[in-house]
Amino acid sequence: MEVAVSTSPADGPYRSAAALLSQYQDVRRATEHLCQPLAIEDYILQAMADVSPTRWHLAHVSWFFETFLLKPHLPGYESPHPKYEFLFNSYYNAVGPQYYRPHRGLISRPTVAEVYDYRAHVDQGMVSLLEVSDENKLRELEPTLILGLNHEQQHQELIITDIKYNLAINPLRPAYHNRPIPRGTATPPLRWMDFQGGIHRIGYEGTEFAFDNEGPRHEALLRPFRIASRLVTNGEFMEFMAAGGYGIPTLWLSDGWTTVKAEGWDAPLYWEKVDGTWWVQTMSGMQPVDEHAPVAHVSYYEADAYAHWKGKRLPTEQEWERSAETEPLQGTFMESGVYHPLPAPGNGGLEQLYGDVWEWTQSPYSAYPGFKPTPGAVGEYNGKFMVNQMVLRGGSCATPRSHLRTTYRNFFPPHARWQFMGFRLAEDA
Amino acid sequence: MEVAVSTSPADGPYRSAAALLSQYQDVRRATEHLCQPLAIEDYILQAMADVSPTRWHLAHVSWFFETFLLKPHLPGYESPHPKYEFLFNSYYNAVGPQYYRPHRGLISRPTVAEVYDYRAHVDQGMVSLLEVSDENKLRELEPTLILGLNHEQQHQELIITDIKYNLAINPLRPAYHNRPIPRGTATPPLRWMDFQGGIHRIGYEGTEFAFDNEGPRHEALLRPFRIASRLVTNGEFMEFMAAGGYGIPTLWLSDGWTTVKAEGWDAPLYWEKVDGTWWVQTMSGMQPVDEHAPVAHVSYYEADAYAHWKGKRLPTEQEWERSAETEPLQGTFMESGVYHPLPAPGNGGLEQLYGDVWEWTQSPYSAYPGFKPTPGAVGEYNGKFMVNQMVLRGGSCATPRSHLRTTYRNFFPPHARWQFMGFRLAEDA
Amino acid sequence: MEVAVSTSPADGPYRSAAALLSQYQDVRRATEHLCQPLAIEDYILQAMADVSPTRWHLAHVSWFFETFLLKPHLPGYESPHPKYEFLFNSYYNAVGPQYYRPHRGLISRPTVAEVYDYRAHVDQGMVSLLEVSDENKLRELEPTLILGLNHEQQHQELIITDIKYNLAINPLRPAYHNRPIPRGTATPPLRWMDFQGGIHRIGYEGTEFAFDNEGPRHEALLRPFRIASRLVTNGEFMEFMAAGGYGIPTLWLSDGWTTVKAEGWDAPLYWEKVDGTWWVQTMSGMQPVDEHAPVAHVSYYEADAYAHWKGKRLPTEQEWERSAETEPLQGTFMESGVYHPLPAPGNGGLEQLYGDVWEWTQSPYSAYPGFKPTPGAVGEYNGKFMVNQMVLRGGSCATPRSHLRTTYRNFFPPHARWQFMGFRLAEDA
Amino acid sequence: MEVAVSTSPADGPYRSAAALLSQYQDVRRATEHLCQPLAIEDYILQAMADVSPTRWHLAHVSWFFETFLLKPHLPGYESPHPKYEFLFNSYYNAVGPQYYRPHRGLISRPTVAEVYDYRAHVDQGMVSLLEVSDENKLRELEPTLILGLNHEQQHQELIITDIKYNLAINPLRPAYHNRPIPRGTATPPLRWMDFQGGIHRIGYEGTEFAFDNEGPRHEALLRPFRIASRLVTNGEFMEFMAAGGYGIPTLWLSDGWTTVKAEGWDAPLYWEKVDGTWWVQTMSGMQPVDEHAPVAHVSYYEADAYAHWKGKRLPTEQEWERSAETEPLQGTFMESGVYHPLPAPGNGGLEQLYGDVWEWTQSPYSAYPGFKPTPGAVGEYNGKFMVNQMVLRGGSCATPRSHLRTTYRNFFPPHARWQFMGFRLAEDA
Repeated sequence: MEVAVSTSPADGPYRSAAALLSQYQDVRRATEHLCQPLAIEDYILQAMADVSPTRWHLAHVSWFFETFLLKPHLPGYESPHPKYEFLFNSYYNAVGPQYYRPHRGLISRPTVAEVYDYRAHVDQGMVSLLEVSDENKLRELEPTLILGLNHEQQHQELIITDIKYNLAINPLRPAYHNRPIPRGTATPPLRWMDFQGGIHRIGYEGTEFAFDNEGPRHEALLRPFRIASRLVTNGEFMEFMAAGGYGIPTLWLSDGWTTVKAEGWDAPLYWEKVDGTWWVQTMSGMQPVDEHAPVAHVSYYEADAYAHWKGKRLPTEQEWERSAETEPLQGTFMESGVYHPLPAPGNGGLEQLYGDVWEWTQSPYSAYPGFKPTPGAVGEYNGKFMVNQMVLRGGSCATPRSHLRTTYRNFFPPHARWQFMGFRLAEDA
Repeated sequence: MEVAVSTSPADGPYRSAAALLSQYQDVRRATEHLCQPLAIEDYILQAMADVSPTRWHLAHVSWFFETFLLKPHLPGYESPHPKYEFLFNSYYNAVGPQYYRPHRGLISRPTVAEVYDYRAHVDQGMVSLLEVSDENKLRELEPTLILGLNHEQQHQELIITDIKYNLAINPLRPAYHNRPIPRGTATPPLRWMDFQGGIHRIGYEGTEFAFDNEGPRHEALLRPFRIASRLVTNGEFMEFMAAGGYGIPTLWLSDGWTTVKAEGWDAPLYWEKVDGTWWVQTMSGMQPVDEHAPVAHVSYYEADAYAHWKGKRLPTEQEWERSAETEPLQGTFMESGVYHPLPAPGNGGLEQLYGDVWEWTQSPYSAYPGFKPTPGAVGEYNGKFMVNQMVLRGGSCATPRSHLRTTYRNFFPPHARWQFMGFRLAEDA
Repeated sequence: MEVAVSTSPADGPYRSAAALLSQYQDVRRATEHLCQPLAIEDYILQAMADVSPTRWHLAHVSWFFETFLLKPHLPGYESPHPKYEFLFNSYYNAVGPQYYRPHRGLISRPTVAEVYDYRAHVDQGMVSLLEVSDENKLRELEPTLILGLNHEQQHQELIITDIKYNLAINPLRPAYHNRPIPRGTATPPLRWMDFQGGIHRIGYEGTEFAFDNEGPRHEALLRPFRIASRLVTNGEFMEFMAAGGYGIPTLWLSDGWTTVKAEGWDAPLYWEKVDGTWWVQTMSGMQPVDEHAPVAHVSYYEADAYAHWKGKRLPTEQEWERSAETEPLQGTFMESGVYHPLPAPGNGGLEQLYGDVWEWTQSPYSAYPGFKPTPGAVGEYNGKFMVNQMVLRGGSCATPRSHLRTTYRNFFPPHARWQFMGFRLAEDA
Repeated sequence: MEVAVSTSPADGPYRSAAALLSQYQDVRRATEHLCQPLAIEDYILQAMADVSPTRWHLAHVSWFFETFLLKPHLPGYESPHPKYEFLFNSYYNAVGPQYYRPHRGLISRPTVAEVYDYRAHVDQGMVSLLEVSDENKLRELEPTLILGLNHEQQHQELIITDIKYNLAINPLRPAYHNRPIPRGTATPPLRWMDFQGGIHRIGYEGTEFAFDNEGPRHEALLRPFRIASRLVTNGEFMEFMAAGGYGIPTLWLSDGWTTVKAEGWDAPLYWEKVDGTWWVQTMSGMQPVDEHAPVAHVSYYEADAYAHWKGKRLPTEQEWERSAETEPLQGTFMESGVYHPLPAPGNGGLEQLYGDVWEWTQSPYSAYPGFKPTPGAVGEYNGKFMVNQMVLRGGSCATPRSHLRTTYRNFFPPHARWQFMGFRLAEDA
């Protein structure tokens, strides 16, 4: 997920300075909580270009508050170092040039301690800013502050997925923590949930925060469809593997087949066969693959090939939203502390829509009708990633629950696998 | 354009063997007609991986008839060489492995003369096949034959665009022919054509040939929109260039900006500044850029950046189809022999929808609702290119007029420029 | 071989204009003779960056005479096209910029016929130049003319080796000609020829033409050594292969082992196993490997690994020259028309020193003591290739016999294989 | 420098266990002393493939003692982790496979503390081994122990040069320490020291430790030559730059010119122009370039181009050794703690031969006559780097003084710049 952000107006009941500060501190604390198991050395790594060092995440989210709130609004604020603006800008060209992304793991300074100092410095600035702001000022700052918090929550998820990747490639197979991962005992039968067609309203509308790519809310024409009651499991995906799925070109999109050959893929990311059994690298170290848990860390290509093999398809993002909008927002989220998708509970309804794994849809990531880029540096990039990516829905076991909504649109290129990505099947009714 | 093909049933009035043969020979002759200006040396080149040598095109389209008609249906048919199946298969994995595409320009044999012999051999086979087939057999063969002819027409367009590329990179700037290109004298004023929203039927339905990706015909929900009366011109695009458009990152999609930087783009493909004036390589050699003619050989990224700069957007493919369906299928096609897009005539209506340049839409290339891959080798790949590409509509000056329909969907990756690609603007009403 | 050239003074008895013209025409004719079996298509190919299209060779050697003789010395001479200077310059920066070498195979014009016209144009110019030059002028021109002829002879060898490469990668495995290659019936026993140490004179000194890198003649200190009576054969090299030589890292130089792994080498270039038997692509098409013939198309790395495996070493270039200087200049040369190395005749002496295959020595290509770069564009580059290359000695089956001398130093990077390269063993006495 | 090692027999007076232990502990302590200024984060970096993380160096040198002494000779010795053998093997194929070198910076575990524990574990093992070994055993172990210490000294130099590189690419330009670097006040005039030609003995012979590539001692034939009294200075090199040296292709070796263009070189490594003045990154941070100090961090290509520009040449390694063998082994070494080359003192003789910067010679790195690879894993690679590299002589400001000898041969590829590399001129007498 490129972290595309927006200043959606929050027109609801205003929050007090104290409430804002409390929310701010909760989010900031949650970020640092994720880092507690790390050694200093772990903060530095960038094992591939798509991931960032934990240290960089910690600094970048602080840079966001500094750049869009403290520098313009807190008189006398000074950054600890003039080069931080350059080092910790991700891709905001309107702010200025950026340190080359794939090289984020090649520099050792500022040290981790200095980055924590930077965080404290920004936190202190935020306390001051909220203190000195009158009611009008608070109303002006609130959207950007809330945006900054949602931005930091997105990076909480990335801290988890990136540290997972960085540790997993180490031949020592270090674990992030030793927390046991609940294993399944059965897979609920797959049922097909029927939905009628017709004109349906899609996208966010309301007074709470949402990213601008979730709107405007608009009418979409759906055809009758059926959607699977749960995610595809590891056990089911192993059937595809056993049937030679990775070796049958006619199951694959052309770009997918090229990728499979070029990368030598023959299993999901993090899987490893040991003495004839599939194991998988988790945040709790190497574990035998749980056949009842949802398959994760598969690309769009693999999801599409599996669906093709089953004679089904992936849902569109509109179908997914239609299915999910009446379901409770429950599942395995970041707050569980497990950071691993869990088997479906088998409660008889439409399950696992939220949390566990982001679900690939067959929808390319595009602008909703009527979408207009917001002016200004913060909103400069609202649409700039709307090409070459596919939409994923529903959040994952690394997503903060409070960060998620039914209308939330995540997006990644079809070859990406290092996020917690899985899928469920759909078909025409 | 990857040439994705289909055996759409042609349920209309049956054609006789003589009629089929006549149509076959017309298409085959038209292909060879395109090669008349070429030197033997020109047939061999593959100046980048996306283009193919003319010789390869000539052989591959013959291989198609051989593979899907002669080998299965003409008793005793033998290919001139057992390796042709390998050399001239493009991407049909069900048929067998293929010679590595980017190396098509590295082999000198079979010679051009041998490839023409191969064509004659296949043509003779086709004559025999049509002669010996009874009515039932003809009905069985007809869809594949018609498909093969449409397939060959697609390669006619590629022969033109690929030879243009191959000649253009030569520092001698050789021309394909010396035909003069009509220049414009004025650009008609840009007008905005209004269309109402509502449910609209999109896609092909009928008894004539169409590719399977044009169907099934289905309902789509349109919002009110306006579409430009003509294509964006070179003159207008030069204003974008003069305003520094290639250097302003906030105008570009993120992937587009990366491409601009990596490729060093500062003008459309084939443009070259000579003594302060922009010239462009054409099939008739270097020419001063005609400010009244439509801009061509721009990527999706450039089209999108220009639209962004103008505060407009590109149309969706549904909007384009809605606009075009009542317009006459006229414009500059392959049959003109000019192979260059021409200025809008300025007749007061919606112009240049067909021919001249393929028009980028903002629609990613995806399956229409209800689309199902057809079984069998010919139809094996109906959907295999439905990712990472954008839809273009309307045909170009290199497209045979008889090959085109309103519902025709072309598709290319957003960075592609070597086809005759341009665009028109749209906006919400 | 990068073709490094020199204007060594030829102080010997002067040649008449008629004699010079006759020699010129002989060499030019021999070049064109090599092209007789080619189809137009064959002239165009550049199947890897190290090889050049035959057409380019034909033009470049003419460009040499044009640039260094006709333009400066023939009043009124004009080149057929102003861009030829750019297109056919190889690497003479003092003359001007050059068309990008790896793209020589991407352009179709000038056509082969136009290049032959260019040759005829230059030939006519040379006739005129020799006619109008008086005795003094002839003496001034002669060194450059003789240099140009030696330069063209080097390109004769490259025409052979490059067309071999270009044809060999074609899956149709086309042959250049159908000339039978004599096969051996026995391999003469390997004997070790003893040479004493001491100070020995090395390098060229005399009145005939030699490249400047062959001089100055100087003293070198040799230690007693033994050198093998003949080249290593295919049969012997197959023993190395059978012993797993390509898979034993401790036999290889570090860079060699990296290359073996990266390239997947498991046999000499052009070898191919068919039904358990090794075949090899030759100028006469695919042939079973002749165990009695010298191994060819091996890199320095392979030669060194083989020697290591046998407990021997390669000779130094001084040892090779010491061994060869009293041997007659006989062997299989270009004039044989076979273009393939032949088995040792087994005449009891030191065999195969000249012709057949260039012999890798363990000497890096460096300046002889006292070597000084010659001033001027022709001699500009005398030493510019003296790094990262190894010396080969003795000529090959593609070298014109009249082009060779005992002191001749050829040089290639250690990974190169597409020349006719082989080796003989040596050891300390 | 690839660290090629050897078990040269040390036939001199035997050292006692106590003496060996003392020497061992001195070297080990010196290594750790170099790391004192580092933050944990600094230990992890690998900013390009040629450098290794400090942490890796610390572990690898311990692995050497573990692998070649403790595992074979200390009963009951166990490594802290079975994967260390894989992670910390550099290139000893006979020991087993190795972790991919360019990925050494992508792993965070074992942590720095764990690596120091590993060192302590090995040190304890060495104490035990020396305690339990009787006289015969000590004599057996001594060569490998001494080799291991020389190996560790080589890595001391690499720790310095690698950490310099890793810190220098950081936009914050962090310094390793704050030690002031003495600046020069004048450059002694360049004088030419004459040496006679004749047969001269080259290479090591004696009872102390030397690497096997320094022998066997042998006769070499030298011609009369002159060698510069001091190194080329920054001031002199800036004259070359001011004369456009980096832009004149005729000054450069062909491979050098290609490298200059591909890398965009226009100054030595670590130089940076600030407001019209050249600064250079040092271990003490950014400093203005000292015109009197020797130029450092230049490739062989730059040294050769400069010499060409001056009408001189680089010395051969034999000439260098002949010049240096009667000079005292003094200069700026690692022990100075400055880690930066200093201006020539101007004492009137032949200066700066030892320490300060390694001096490029024009000699490719090859085997001395009679060199034979030693059997066994430690000596497995004695000659495996003898291709594609040039010899450098004399040590640098990062070389421990006790590690150096007149006959010491260092070697690097001609494009390498990150070591302390400079040069002096020579010419034929």
